[in-house]
Amino acid sequence: MRMLKKLMFLAPLLLTATAFGQDEPPAEGSYEAFMASGADAAMFTVNNLWILISAALVFIMHLGFSTVESGLCQKKNTVNILFKNVFIVCIGALGYMAYGFNAMYPGDATAGDWNGFFAMGGPLMNGFADEATRTANTTAEYGNYTVWSDFIFQAMFAATAATIVSGAVAERVKLSTFMIYATLLVTFIYPITGSWEWGVGGWLNTVGGEKFGGEFVDFAGSSLVHAFGGFAALAAVLVLGPRRGKYTSEGTKPILPHSLPLAAIGVFLLFLGWFGFNGGSVLSADPERVSRVFVTTAMAGFGGGLAAIFTSWIVLKKPDLSMGLNGMLAGLVGITAGAGAISPWASVLVGAIAGALVVVSVLFFDKIKVDDPVGAISVHGICGMWGTIAVGIFGQDGLNGGEISLTTQIIGTLSISAFAFVSSFALFFILKMVMGVRVDEQEESEGLDVAEHGSPAYTD
Amino acid sequence: MRMLKKLMFLAPLLLTATAFGQDEPPAEGSYEAFMASGADAAMFTVNNLWILISAALVFIMHLGFSTVESGLCQKKNTVNILFKNVFIVCIGALGYMAYGFNAMYPGDATAGDWNGFFAMGGPLMNGFADEATRTANTTAEYGNYTVWSDFIFQAMFAATAATIVSGAVAERVKLSTFMIYATLLVTFIYPITGSWEWGVGGWLNTVGGEKFGGEFVDFAGSSLVHAFGGFAALAAVLVLGPRRGKYTSEGTKPILPHSLPLAAIGVFLLFLGWFGFNGGSVLSADPERVSRVFVTTAMAGFGGGLAAIFTSWIVLKKPDLSMGLNGMLAGLVGITAGAGAISPWASVLVGAIAGALVVVSVLFFDKIKVDDPVGAISVHGICGMWGTIAVGIFGQDGLNGGEISLTTQIIGTLSISAFAFVSSFALFFILKMVMGVRVDEQEESEGLDVAEHGSPAYTD
Amino acid sequence: MRMLKKLMFLAPLLLTATAFGQDEPPAEGSYEAFMASGADAAMFTVNNLWILISAALVFIMHLGFSTVESGLCQKKNTVNILFKNVFIVCIGALGYMAYGFNAMYPGDATAGDWNGFFAMGGPLMNGFADEATRTANTTAEYGNYTVWSDFIFQAMFAATAATIVSGAVAERVKLSTFMIYATLLVTFIYPITGSWEWGVGGWLNTVGGEKFGGEFVDFAGSSLVHAFGGFAALAAVLVLGPRRGKYTSEGTKPILPHSLPLAAIGVFLLFLGWFGFNGGSVLSADPERVSRVFVTTAMAGFGGGLAAIFTSWIVLKKPDLSMGLNGMLAGLVGITAGAGAISPWASVLVGAIAGALVVVSVLFFDKIKVDDPVGAISVHGICGMWGTIAVGIFGQDGLNGGEISLTTQIIGTLSISAFAFVSSFALFFILKMVMGVRVDEQEESEGLDVAEHGSPAYTD
Repeated sequence: MRMLKKLMFLAPLLLTATAFGQDEPPAEGSYEAFMASGADAAMFTVNNLWILISAALVFIMHLGFSTVESGLCQKKNTVNILFKNVFIVCIGALGYMAYGFNAMYPGDATAGDWNGFFAMGGPLMNGFADEATRTANTTAEYGNYTVWSDFIFQAMFAATAATIVSGAVAERVKLSTFMIYATLLVTFIYPITGSWEWGVGGWLNTVGGEKFGGEFVDFAGSSLVHAFGGFAALAAVLVLGPRRGKYTSEGTKPILPHSLPLAAIGVFLLFLGWFGFNGGSVLSADPERVSRVFVTTAMAGFGGGLAAIFTSWIVLKKPDLSMGLNGMLAGLVGITAGAGAISPWASVLVGAIAGALVVVSVLFFDKIKVDDPVGAISVHGICGMWGTIAVGIFGQDGLNGGEISLTTQIIGTLSISAFAFVSSFALFFILKMVMGVRVDEQEESEGLDVAEHGSPAYTD
Repeated sequence: MRMLKKLMFLAPLLLTATAFGQDEPPAEGSYEAFMASGADAAMFTVNNLWILISAALVFIMHLGFSTVESGLCQKKNTVNILFKNVFIVCIGALGYMAYGFNAMYPGDATAGDWNGFFAMGGPLMNGFADEATRTANTTAEYGNYTVWSDFIFQAMFAATAATIVSGAVAERVKLSTFMIYATLLVTFIYPITGSWEWGVGGWLNTVGGEKFGGEFVDFAGSSLVHAFGGFAALAAVLVLGPRRGKYTSEGTKPILPHSLPLAAIGVFLLFLGWFGFNGGSVLSADPERVSRVFVTTAMAGFGGGLAAIFTSWIVLKKPDLSMGLNGMLAGLVGITAGAGAISPWASVLVGAIAGALVVVSVLFFDKIKVDDPVGAISVHGICGMWGTIAVGIFGQDGLNGGEISLTTQIIGTLSISAFAFVSSFALFFILKMVMGVRVDEQEESEGLDVAEHGSPAYTD
Repeated sequence: MRMLKKLMFLAPLLLTATAFGQDEPPAEGSYEAFMASGADAAMFTVNNLWILISAALVFIMHLGFSTVESGLCQKKNTVNILFKNVFIVCIGALGYMAYGFNAMYPGDATAGDWNGFFAMGGPLMNGFADEATRTANTTAEYGNYTVWSDFIFQAMFAATAATIVSGAVAERVKLSTFMIYATLLVTFIYPITGSWEWGVGGWLNTVGGEKFGGEFVDFAGSSLVHAFGGFAALAAVLVLGPRRGKYTSEGTKPILPHSLPLAAIGVFLLFLGWFGFNGGSVLSADPERVSRVFVTTAMAGFGGGLAAIFTSWIVLKKPDLSMGLNGMLAGLVGITAGAGAISPWASVLVGAIAGALVVVSVLFFDKIKVDDPVGAISVHGICGMWGTIAVGIFGQDGLNGGEISLTTQIIGTLSISAFAFVSSFALFFILKMVMGVRVDEQEESEGLDVAEHGSPAYTD
């Protein structure tokens, strides 16, 4: 056993508790007193641990996004996609630490801390002024976990929104422009819609129930994360335009994925991460709730995979792997709003509808010449919207009773998606005017890896 | 902190407990009352959490199987292998939800619920009729975890059996046939042998101890999962025949793996998943048991890797990576029956014997012209059988005392393997008669990716 | 639910507790009595579970090392690198079981068990002589976890030291020589420096505080694991020499990585594993400590990634993916010593400095013709040293108070690095004399995969 004293890294704060010797009881109201409280401390510890493990699971989704996006694109743009993903997860978490976390959870609007629509953020606190503040932030006073766990779990979420856009604009976006766009989107725009529902007293959170007959339910973010990212992506793609040579006068030219094993690795890792994404959104390790969320999440993903396999087989006349993979993701996105409110069998149905929908949606966007190399708009935007609405349809099997309203669900998902679309459009359009959003023709043709990064992804 | 009321997704059931205000104590005998019980609730929560995390770990084994199988096969069949794996995990879990779970755990044979050999299944319940049923399924009344945790953990196991077959029949099996075969195998056949041992009162579970001097011990499924899959695979391969051009009049032609990095990723992910596969099979987070299982599992895997490295070096005169990788898997399969009954040092030995055995077995099957592209029959079938027998030899170091009988272990593993072999042979043979089991010569030569899926795995 | 009696794998020991029927209370002082103790048992169970999950997370770092090293090297040496990694994790854990664990944690020097500098090791115990010894090793008497958890967590750490060297000597080292070197390094040398700090009464552990004004702080091993591995690597590279054709009379020839997706997979998996590496080093699931360590660890990694991206952009005039990836690793290595002692915002700074440093260091070693294909000396050696020193600079924000001394930190990291360098140099030099350390020119040119292993990593 390593020496325990190595770990006394909170020594000064512990002084009050330990100065008079080990047998001295910890000061009343302190963290140490709470941790000596027996069963409550044990329960808090397991709840907190689950949030941390969930944060780690959501972290690995960033590897999932990196590999699924690069796998579905062309070989010559692989370095560029990986680079963007590395940058986004770094800047996303740092921006969230510097501003977003406090903008998204600004306090309690009913207590007058903010207006329910928008709050200024600010940096994560660095430490605690006194023992009482520390205890208020690191024990059951705060919730089922410490403020640090809360932050790191939410920070891992935050970066996903910009990552979703990354896939849709791949293979032709200008790197520096995208870096600025992603930074602003994840730091300043994502927390606004987030606060509407997850901030205490956000307008969707409070107004909904009174006005439209039911509180808005978006358990882990079908709208707040996925539809947000998907509709931000749609706006960016409209400003950006399709890849050169994709839609020609002679028809649409399919651009094949460069590595389906890489894409499959990505989808399975995203699926794994979703156990933390949805499971951690229970915000405790409550056995009944977390275990039901595991069942609904997984079964929706499996339902989505199967439905996409058979739908694409019928429509495209062949068993299509990338549709099967996107179908699993679609099912997962679809259940994200209702993982806690929908019964296990209904979750299979919600996932299956999402899986069928994603096939139709991918073909539709290709038909109207909206070029999305990885299907992000369909998977996250359309299925995120579907999942939010599905709560209004299926979330009434005695689980949420009369509190659910289809109207509220529709208003909620439309508000969030519209805000994401408009903000993203405005931001990306301004960047287009100021610095340009596309690489030039030669760079696009040569591939961004060599043109922008001076290095191919693969060598012999 | 996100609003906690978001999480009240069991509101109607909670009404009884909360209708009179927050300070009202929960109704006696309710889930809420149990969760307010202090230390028991905390222990239940950590036990349940471990089963859920284990389910997530077993899930990622499906990515492990996908990558190890595709990595060890030819480039031209990669999409096909990945597609089969996506399909299997989806249909396997859904079939288990619709039928298998209740067929495998049909109740208590000693209470007359079933006959100990075979039980009809049925769908997973969707909710609970009343508060008492709910409590019986979601608290310590049920076990160390909720019924939902039980289901999702076992569902992740179920699909592995069919996945094992997938690797052995790769590169020449007809996709539609295999999809029907896998669906039937995992949904209807796997739960039968499963119930023999893991169902309460299954014949191996009860008869063994009385008749053959010791209860059958198959901790996490060396026989029930791995030998089952391995011998089902052997039957399928015998019906199917070898890949064209593998065994010619001029001798056996080695067919090289197309991506050893992909295979290595797969093996390490399988190893990671095994911590959940074996560790979760403790069915609680009991510190002594789970920690010992971690040690025996890991050390058997490492022992297997080393033994296979040196055995293949001696036999093949070169340090063979794919043998080293399969050796780790062999060690893990080998310890799966006895992870809880074998001492740490004996587990190294059991793993090492498995690692040596897998090299010999792979060469043997190649010699008798049983063509198994990934070595699944050897890794899972032969080493699964070995692991089960090993409990009868090494499981007596004061851990299980007089309860272990080599005879019972042999009878058990032979029964399960024989049932898997015969069922699989019959099923695959019927499918051969009805719809054919092989792709035609041209498709096999061209590769299944383009021929069946219309899409290569890699493009430049 | 699987039959619980399956799990009674400690039946004989339980006999004392259960012989008189289930209702009999467990024997006083037994493991069973402890586990029936309510809240203490629940807390112990969650603490122990976290150490085990951390062990699994550290395990997956070995896949991270395997893929990042092979991805950053040439295609023709991929099998060789993967093979070395499989071998190292197997032999590393087995050597640690046979000798290292007991050499690294030899007891208590203040109680006269050893001298504080060096202790003979010996095999991990296989079982317990009696109930009292068992209880002493598997309950809170031992710590926050069982002896088995302690062993498996530390065993997963041990192999990393040799793995670090593996990357630096890649593409030209003789396989058999390296296997002997790695075995000796990880089994006999790594535990020596480890015991200096993590062994109770190790000289750095005790002398430091008295002599140099502060106890040596190396939380999870910036020096004991990373600088150890990095400086062992530097010595090995000096003995070995650069790859042929790298430094020519016409200047330095860049040798490009063969697969950046593989490298990216590796870095993200290492990042994931670091949550266990640092988080598990809290040695409990203490909510405040573990959650702060998650925050400092992740934010240092993100800070390192960003700093390396911008530093390399300025210096190399292009956005370099492999520098961004190595920057994340550098930040993680940098925070490993101080994850528990440095504030969240200071951890961003420590990581960012590490990220900038790694770019400069990689260029510096290339300039002085020290050929390190993956940058291991810079990432682990230089940034490990920096991280240890950073605790002396930043670890004073009221977290460790007056106990931290910059002098002690510098003396500590220099001692450990120097010992690693000298031992590794001596060992590798002797092996060079005895059996040679390099493959011959033709093998190096042809690639080690075909030359040493008779098998390419990829086929078409």
